[in-house]
Amino acid sequence: MSQQNSTKWTAEVISIGDEMTSGARLDTNAQWLSQRLAELGIEVLFHTTVCDTLAHNVNVFQTAARRVDFVVCTGGLGPTRDDLTREALSEVASDPLELRKQALDHIETLFSSRGRPMSERNRLQAMFPSTSTIIPNPLGTAPGIDLRLREDASDHVCRVFALPGVPAEMMPMFDQYVAPSLVSNNGDQHVIRSLVMKFFGTGESAMEERLGDTIARDRQPRVGITVSAATISLRITAHAETAQECEAMIADTKTEILGRVPEYYFGDGENYEQYHAIDSSLRSRGESLMVVELGYAAPLNDWFASLGDTPSYRGGLSLANERELRRHTSASALAEAITQLKSQFDVDWLLLVDGYPSLNSPLVREPSETMPNASVKMLVSSPDGVLHERKSTIAGHPDILQPRIGKTAMEHLRAVMAATDLA
Amino acid sequence: MSQQNSTKWTAEVISIGDEMTSGARLDTNAQWLSQRLAELGIEVLFHTTVCDTLAHNVNVFQTAARRVDFVVCTGGLGPTRDDLTREALSEVASDPLELRKQALDHIETLFSSRGRPMSERNRLQAMFPSTSTIIPNPLGTAPGIDLRLREDASDHVCRVFALPGVPAEMMPMFDQYVAPSLVSNNGDQHVIRSLVMKFFGTGESAMEERLGDTIARDRQPRVGITVSAATISLRITAHAETAQECEAMIADTKTEILGRVPEYYFGDGENYEQYHAIDSSLRSRGESLMVVELGYAAPLNDWFASLGDTPSYRGGLSLANERELRRHTSASALAEAITQLKSQFDVDWLLLVDGYPSLNSPLVREPSETMPNASVKMLVSSPDGVLHERKSTIAGHPDILQPRIGKTAMEHLRAVMAATDLA
Repeated sequence: MSQQNSTKWTAEVISIGDEMTSGARLDTNAQWLSQRLAELGIEVLFHTTVCDTLAHNVNVFQTAARRVDFVVCTGGLGPTRDDLTREALSEVASDPLELRKQALDHIETLFSSRGRPMSERNRLQAMFPSTSTIIPNPLGTAPGIDLRLREDASDHVCRVFALPGVPAEMMPMFDQYVAPSLVSNNGDQHVIRSLVMKFFGTGESAMEERLGDTIARDRQPRVGITVSAATISLRITAHAETAQECEAMIADTKTEILGRVPEYYFGDGENYEQYHAIDSSLRSRGESLMVVELGYAAPLNDWFASLGDTPSYRGGLSLANERELRRHTSASALAEAITQLKSQFDVDWLLLVDGYPSLNSPLVREPSETMPNASVKMLVSSPDGVLHERKSTIAGHPDILQPRIGKTAMEHLRAVMAATDLA
Repeated sequence: MSQQNSTKWTAEVISIGDEMTSGARLDTNAQWLSQRLAELGIEVLFHTTVCDTLAHNVNVFQTAARRVDFVVCTGGLGPTRDDLTREALSEVASDPLELRKQALDHIETLFSSRGRPMSERNRLQAMFPSTSTIIPNPLGTAPGIDLRLREDASDHVCRVFALPGVPAEMMPMFDQYVAPSLVSNNGDQHVIRSLVMKFFGTGESAMEERLGDTIARDRQPRVGITVSAATISLRITAHAETAQECEAMIADTKTEILGRVPEYYFGDGENYEQYHAIDSSLRSRGESLMVVELGYAAPLNDWFASLGDTPSYRGGLSLANERELRRHTSASALAEAITQLKSQFDVDWLLLVDGYPSLNSPLVREPSETMPNASVKMLVSSPDGVLHERKSTIAGHPDILQPRIGKTAMEHLRAVMAATDLA
């Protein structure tokens, strides 16, 4: 019942402007609005971006009015000839535009307060469909429009909130006017919470098979799977009447997931990575680490540096190859070089990657049927000075091959640390 | 005439995935595709993003088929239950799916090359509408679909190109298959050439002002401007009957641009970065470099390592702060530490960044009206041992602040090298 309720309302986000359909600008409003709407328990089914042409704007609003309960659109409310949102809405609603004194006063006040003359065209910004409500815009000259579109055929009503495209004006207008209007529509399930679980070491489809119906689309709470550079994120999203109910549902689902796929899990949080997990176990053991990266990349140097002023990470070194490393430490053997570096950096642990391959091979420049492969040696030196070696053949697209190698090395380090933990 | 020809065709870009309609991920494919389509003389009228629900996917494809000549869609071609693009296209075209051996062989080859077992669900990726053509995907398991949708009512035909959502796979598939297919639709101007010029050191709007009508949308050849992590790319795209004509048009435009904005230019090529420019001048001088990065990031260690077996780059060091650097070299002063490192790494040049700020400040966690600022010291030690210091206050969104600091440091190094060149 409340489940139904949580998927009862649907929305479409519409962004208006040639600058986006031409690719000159990246639309970030749609993402921001989608996150806010999801938090309000409203499911966003579509984003639409449309150029500054009246007929196409009308087409887009008509299409949206048929398929969702709410539309939040941004852009096209300015004073220029390109700004067609109020005309388009007037046409779709067959509702003539009328001048609203309240809006005109606001615009005139704003101009005089800025000591600027008000152009005739700005009067257009005070024109509204007769059945619409003004959405106040404290920060700009373009008030928003709150209008209900009725379909003659059905009883379906689609409520449109038209906001300016400028994020600094759009965001407060959404928070102060649109969000409260939506919540009052949304029955009892107005609370939404989510948790992101992170995994590394397997592929997306293998992961999905292991998870089975845990990721069924109609399941509550819903579990969504996404992959970024070989790291898998599971997002658990719960709707309920209280935050407490949400947290309980999320906890149960997390337990079920860990029961199915325990071995690749390393932590929770959208931005939580393996180096955070390594940092926290090093801290709890009071131990420290340095990384040495050989070859054509050094992602671990960058990632571990982001930990900043932690006692657990002491720094990193990046060199071309093992010969360079031996020359650098004037050591005759790799083991000797590692011992010297550990004392120079004053660390308990050392992680060495030998090495990141060149991405400039013909294979990578002219991709063939198979992905580039790299046979990589990963060496971990534990506090007792023992060397734990792992050789992996790692494949991946050029854009993610080096990060995947770095992440595989961290997986090796975590495994060695876990083993010495048990010992 | 050819101008008309070049604006004759219209397109819609469709992005498929809950992770975008939910706001979990920002869609960047639509912007990239819109730029490419514009360069091909095709006008993009709509972007649509749709969730992973079959009925809504069908709805979106039907709507697009009625209003544009071409659709380029991304996503929904994977092996999981959420991947519905091929089913949706099959339903819209009333064209049953059939197994294509060629595609199946490709997928099996890819899995064996990665040494991973192929999941049953991956077989689905070899299913295609019977009237469709396979778009090869050399880099991934998801081949694309090239399908014509006919409207019974009118004679209108909409050609759909379905590509994977992974940009690394989608982009080459567009360049190698879709672009040539579209150009063959585009009248006599079937030859396209483009050149990307790279700039660093100024903002987008300042750049646009300097360029004036060079970036007018109706200009031939067209010049498109995009910004990525503070690096500005100008893409010159020429259409003509012969490659020779294209090259000539591009050369003229490049000369005009360099006349207007000479000082921020550092080279040509989509993936050409400042460290490539630094590498080539070091090579021509027979000199070498190392980098030292202090603080919460080490992007230069990663970027310069990618140069690999060049004699010009000897390695990098990443440490928490200057104190750590002095302790590490057991030097009493920074200058002394630098001298020691230069002899240990055996280099002519040293670039030091002190230092990358933490991104965990409240300001950065909750970005306000003002962007986070970092006051950063960049030190260059030239072959004669002289220290060239530059202090900059660098602002930027958390996502690009650290890269921007690294790029500003490279700009400083290039300036010092240029000066000593002249000397």
